[in-house]
Amino acid sequence: MNDRYRVFFVNALSGFKAAHLVGSRSDDGRDNLAIFTSVVHIGANPPLLGLVSRPNTVPRHTLENIAATGEYTINHVSSDMIAAAHQTSARYPAETSEFEATGLTPRCGERLSAPYVAESRLTIGLEHRQTIDIEPNGTHLVIGEIVEVELDSDTINEDGWIDLAALDSVSAAGLDAYYSPQRLARFSYAKPDRPLRTLD
Amino acid sequence: MNDRYRVFFVNALSGFKAAHLVGSRSDDGRDNLAIFTSVVHIGANPPLLGLVSRPNTVPRHTLENIAATGEYTINHVSSDMIAAAHQTSARYPAETSEFEATGLTPRCGERLSAPYVAESRLTIGLEHRQTIDIEPNGTHLVIGEIVEVELDSDTINEDGWIDLAALDSVSAAGLDAYYSPQRLARFSYAKPDRPLRTLD
Repeated sequence: MNDRYRVFFVNALSGFKAAHLVGSRSDDGRDNLAIFTSVVHIGANPPLLGLVSRPNTVPRHTLENIAATGEYTINHVSSDMIAAAHQTSARYPAETSEFEATGLTPRCGERLSAPYVAESRLTIGLEHRQTIDIEPNGTHLVIGEIVEVELDSDTINEDGWIDLAALDSVSAAGLDAYYSPQRLARFSYAKPDRPLRTLD
Repeated sequence: MNDRYRVFFVNALSGFKAAHLVGSRSDDGRDNLAIFTSVVHIGANPPLLGLVSRPNTVPRHTLENIAATGEYTINHVSSDMIAAAHQTSARYPAETSEFEATGLTPRCGERLSAPYVAESRLTIGLEHRQTIDIEPNGTHLVIGEIVEVELDSDTINEDGWIDLAALDSVSAAGLDAYYSPQRLARFSYAKPDRPLRTLD
């Protein structure tokens, strides 16, 4: 395998991923927005999300801003935002805001200075808790605690589950492909020797 | 929020996730199979996948087996497997194989003793490299290196990208909902001041 083939191939092996726009602000007030497909649930209590970031060998504005300010936002990508979201992965110079470059709109939250994406239908504000170095390849796992969430309450089921398809959130595969997930089923809690029920 | 509501709500916030069946074998030869929705791409060279696992406070056979044998498999879930895959989350006793309990079929690979899922259309064999403790809540990030991959070569694009929709891989949301992702677009590499193209 040549390097480029390997990157495409291995990036697809992990399966469908969420696509998120991560908003951050530098110490001197410049907004940054970057697409990540490596957000992972860490725990519900306290509510923690992880974010895998590539080695900090070239300027990684998101990592720098999180380290400097301790705050960032995670914004779901809906189907009408995929081109703009993908375009944030271009290597803009630090003085360029990806908001201006892609036409997405920054929105201020109540608790954080980091920018949200106004077009996003589920936005999450986080305070940085820890960054863990992943030794085998020098990547980083950035862990933050959720301090603010905004979404349409009609999409929250009575048991707390969120209908992400109703929010039109997308999923991603590999480095560059975007998908609209269609629901197959929601199942009851699994127990030995009891058949599953499907939930609404 | 009560605890159950919080668990459903926070688990859905991270967006669509991949659903994978993780196969492992105990030191004394018992097969284990468990669904995880926390597999994350760590790097392409070396090819590394991460897996977030809950605190090891109750018996976690997968973690124990990986620690004991250093081997495990990650198997994509396709739409006809979602009920059996979800059922593996029931708390079976250690002497029960989730393969037998759910009707999924174990398959031996060439390099590892850990079982693959015969029904899975993309299977990955891994050797354990490192387990990182995530201090804020006691979860673990299990990192493995890919040593074996099996899939239909017709689903691999000439550039290395894999068409996961052609493999019928599913995505998941929250703890219990499964989805079939429909492709919206694949985009060219993003560059400043150059419009995106869509790829086949």
